[in-house]
Amino acid sequence: MNADLEQWNGLRQPEPTLPSRYYLDAAHFKLELQKIWYRHWVYLCRSEALPGPRSFGTFKVGTQTVLLVRDDAGVLRAFHNTCRHRGAALCSAESGRLPAAAITCRYHAFTYGLDGKFLRRPLHGRDMPDIEQDLSLYAVPLREWNGFVFVHVGATPAQDPEEYFRADAAALQNWPLGSLRIAHSQERTVACNWKILWENYNECLHCPGVHPNLSRLVPIYRRGIMEPKDDANWSEHAGRAEPEFRGGLRAGAASWTSDGKPHGIPFAGLTTRERELGYLYLSYPPSIYLVAHVDYVRVVQFLPLGPAQTRVSAQWLVAPESLSQPGFDIQPAVEFVTQVMAEDAGICELVQQGLGSEAHQAGVLMPEEYDVYRFQDWVRGELAR
Amino acid sequence: MNADLEQWNGLRQPEPTLPSRYYLDAAHFKLELQKIWYRHWVYLCRSEALPGPRSFGTFKVGTQTVLLVRDDAGVLRAFHNTCRHRGAALCSAESGRLPAAAITCRYHAFTYGLDGKFLRRPLHGRDMPDIEQDLSLYAVPLREWNGFVFVHVGATPAQDPEEYFRADAAALQNWPLGSLRIAHSQERTVACNWKILWENYNECLHCPGVHPNLSRLVPIYRRGIMEPKDDANWSEHAGRAEPEFRGGLRAGAASWTSDGKPHGIPFAGLTTRERELGYLYLSYPPSIYLVAHVDYVRVVQFLPLGPAQTRVSAQWLVAPESLSQPGFDIQPAVEFVTQVMAEDAGICELVQQGLGSEAHQAGVLMPEEYDVYRFQDWVRGELAR
Amino acid sequence: MNADLEQWNGLRQPEPTLPSRYYLDAAHFKLELQKIWYRHWVYLCRSEALPGPRSFGTFKVGTQTVLLVRDDAGVLRAFHNTCRHRGAALCSAESGRLPAAAITCRYHAFTYGLDGKFLRRPLHGRDMPDIEQDLSLYAVPLREWNGFVFVHVGATPAQDPEEYFRADAAALQNWPLGSLRIAHSQERTVACNWKILWENYNECLHCPGVHPNLSRLVPIYRRGIMEPKDDANWSEHAGRAEPEFRGGLRAGAASWTSDGKPHGIPFAGLTTRERELGYLYLSYPPSIYLVAHVDYVRVVQFLPLGPAQTRVSAQWLVAPESLSQPGFDIQPAVEFVTQVMAEDAGICELVQQGLGSEAHQAGVLMPEEYDVYRFQDWVRGELAR
Repeated sequence: MNADLEQWNGLRQPEPTLPSRYYLDAAHFKLELQKIWYRHWVYLCRSEALPGPRSFGTFKVGTQTVLLVRDDAGVLRAFHNTCRHRGAALCSAESGRLPAAAITCRYHAFTYGLDGKFLRRPLHGRDMPDIEQDLSLYAVPLREWNGFVFVHVGATPAQDPEEYFRADAAALQNWPLGSLRIAHSQERTVACNWKILWENYNECLHCPGVHPNLSRLVPIYRRGIMEPKDDANWSEHAGRAEPEFRGGLRAGAASWTSDGKPHGIPFAGLTTRERELGYLYLSYPPSIYLVAHVDYVRVVQFLPLGPAQTRVSAQWLVAPESLSQPGFDIQPAVEFVTQVMAEDAGICELVQQGLGSEAHQAGVLMPEEYDVYRFQDWVRGELAR
Repeated sequence: MNADLEQWNGLRQPEPTLPSRYYLDAAHFKLELQKIWYRHWVYLCRSEALPGPRSFGTFKVGTQTVLLVRDDAGVLRAFHNTCRHRGAALCSAESGRLPAAAITCRYHAFTYGLDGKFLRRPLHGRDMPDIEQDLSLYAVPLREWNGFVFVHVGATPAQDPEEYFRADAAALQNWPLGSLRIAHSQERTVACNWKILWENYNECLHCPGVHPNLSRLVPIYRRGIMEPKDDANWSEHAGRAEPEFRGGLRAGAASWTSDGKPHGIPFAGLTTRERELGYLYLSYPPSIYLVAHVDYVRVVQFLPLGPAQTRVSAQWLVAPESLSQPGFDIQPAVEFVTQVMAEDAGICELVQQGLGSEAHQAGVLMPEEYDVYRFQDWVRGELAR
Repeated sequence: MNADLEQWNGLRQPEPTLPSRYYLDAAHFKLELQKIWYRHWVYLCRSEALPGPRSFGTFKVGTQTVLLVRDDAGVLRAFHNTCRHRGAALCSAESGRLPAAAITCRYHAFTYGLDGKFLRRPLHGRDMPDIEQDLSLYAVPLREWNGFVFVHVGATPAQDPEEYFRADAAALQNWPLGSLRIAHSQERTVACNWKILWENYNECLHCPGVHPNLSRLVPIYRRGIMEPKDDANWSEHAGRAEPEFRGGLRAGAASWTSDGKPHGIPFAGLTTRERELGYLYLSYPPSIYLVAHVDYVRVVQFLPLGPAQTRVSAQWLVAPESLSQPGFDIQPAVEFVTQVMAEDAGICELVQQGLGSEAHQAGVLMPEEYDVYRFQDWVRGELAR
């Protein structure tokens, strides 16, 4: 029993949650934009969303709008979507293709290269004094990692990008992330603070009650835990092969789809253990987590719109060969996960509502919520910088 | 004349009203929630609105949501509508019936007795360290008085409830308030501060212009006053029996209905004077006033939604025998009063609009507005605590 | 070349624009209401909008509502739209005619003369102590200038009205402004700060790109400048008669209409130069500018609704004889200008969007934007008082 406890994942004691006002207060929301959202690398889109030279997209991160542009050599860059001259927004469409290899402001035709360099302003044939000031676009640092485009909105990255992307990425090294293609996308606005969605993602104590279908597909979830050592008495079941104790999918199922069958061409390089488990997570707060299955990878993206509003987007990625396979249908994967995400959205909105009580200064975390604690501790740390 | 003036109700001199900003400013509104709405007993509903064991209702008072629940022994209790664990709202419907004699949070199945006591959390068969912390629901003090359910949202009641309910309640001692039943309910949102509605309730100087029908039914209102001694020269008319001078309904009328006739079975225990007068008021600011007639009692409830928004609800209560009487029709009472309340709502919204002028720091009260002064003085006192 | 530069209108060096937060921040918006909008004479309407005795209109300036009333002798006066008694709005309609030569509050029948003097309050036959306090309406200073009605909402005018109206008005002395009549009116809400609209009005560097039709009609605009000496090398073209260099309309055009022809009866008193030029501006920030043509004068009015919302109204004024002329049609003038104004509104909304970037503390003004600089310097000065 002592040996069990030593390896047990659970929190050793109940821990207070973050204060309720962190989820309600408009001034605190602005602080989190500055300290977290503008200080971390934030996922915007898959690289393929800007499919060729001169394609562009605009993305809102908090109150800021980022303009992504691909140049003629295929290089992606990001800028604040603002002209240096009088401040007009450069592109107002969500996405499109520039008519030339330059960004020209519609207001006064100030023109910038696709590398953001100031090229020219309208002279209309007259002499003008030189302007010493560098009028190049406000650059936004950008990194691509396996086809995922990340930007850093604020002035100084909180973290070295290498460190950031190295982190747990090895866990998905057998998935060909870089070559995957979008089979389906969807998005919705959820009436809750972005942190509530992350906290919900970080525990499965809610699974038995909130996700009946998912708990049937992943039997260990039915026990309210994520993996064997979330159980304080894990050694009692250490030898048992049933998925209820060992993790993984129910007998006969191979992927997170409505019928449990894989519907895309399974990825070739997975280990037996990875195929047996049937799901693997990778998360990069504050903006993205991945769930990798044998036939598809789901990308979930959070973008904060206000203290009590978050945009949640999801993409279903598959191997390119799946897309070109006759009869390929992603719907069984979309249906299954859309229901799970709707269940999460509904319950997260209830949390937002309940946190408004003035009697409720903070909640309390149970042992199984050790990853919620880890997330909240990360938030505390970022706010304390 | 000196003797007249001694007994005269009127203000001896014009008094300034509350400052305009008390009706406009968002920060002041929050202060009033804390100092008034959460420090006083607030009326939520009639007891019959939760008709049996396990029935519940949710009610918003300012920014707070109160959950009312009736237990299997019929006892009503109130709680903040928030789970102690992660803060989820416990009930999201306005009203309903619980499936069991317990309140179970939909998020992680934390379960509470109908007395609010923490009962259990999901263990899924594992040992967990004991949690010392009391995880019972946040209780909200509740009092029932003659079928009216009051709660106290904040930590410490501003007033002893006995003192509160004793107040003027004797005035209605001949009405069987506790046994009355709801014959009709309605509600609307009025675009004005809650105090404007109370100030409007507290004077009849506006009656001749705003309420022509009511002023015909209650002739003294046509004179802009509420009772004989509101007139500085009251003794001139002291001996006159006409309702214009003595108060009470016009000749031939017995109740506040569109035809002046009572439509419910008249209450048996009223005195001759009460029957002759035809209306009697009882008010419990900030949330409720009653108007009692020979055949029905009207309940009017104010709940603040914002500096310039108030929810106004009204209920028409009658004797249970009226409800079961063949052909009983409450409509003549509903119609008459609905028009009066619409007239009040319209004029109160004009006041909210006009108070926005930066030139208008405050208004001025006329002698007849002595009860407006009393109300505003009470507000000043509560804010000064 | 040195001589050229001396007479050149252009800014000698790039100048920073106003800080971006002046266009975004709610507290700064309130400061501008106090320091600019309530301290300057603001245009409300043409006098003819209140066509006869007892006609009234209500107008919003910032958060304040001004009531205009014409008395039986034809005199216009302005008041805060607020009753001195309990603060009710006196008139809720946008315009109308009073039923008597008095303003009577609908709430308690406090009555004021059309000169704002307190006349009476309801006495209902009773004696009341005298009220020493002056209960006359809160007066708003008003000036009529050539049929344009201006008011001053705050306590003390920032400027002597004579000084204000004298300013540049001589420029339009040959137009019979006082006798003009409204041929057409329209309005829209533009999602930008009021200053962006003024800045846009104050330069033509945007004309070639934003206003193709206008730049064809006024060829010098095609060069991004407003007049010859906006060009640093103006003397090179000093002798040239083409409108591209000299200003004025394209050959064959006489007015700002869709076909370039005048459609109203041309004003008789214009000089040859005024007829040749075809347009002349007169601006009274913060609320109005005029553009005078040979056959009509356009009035453009800005009224601030919020940091990012401005109401833009326009009126087309013509000689009374034009209105009574058979077959008179203002549409060619309306069509032409409506397109120009829509182009301006669209681009100004892009500026509001782009200014939200946290990287963009301020923009930079080009030499041609000397009038934008002058406007921004005026704003700085007003805020510094």
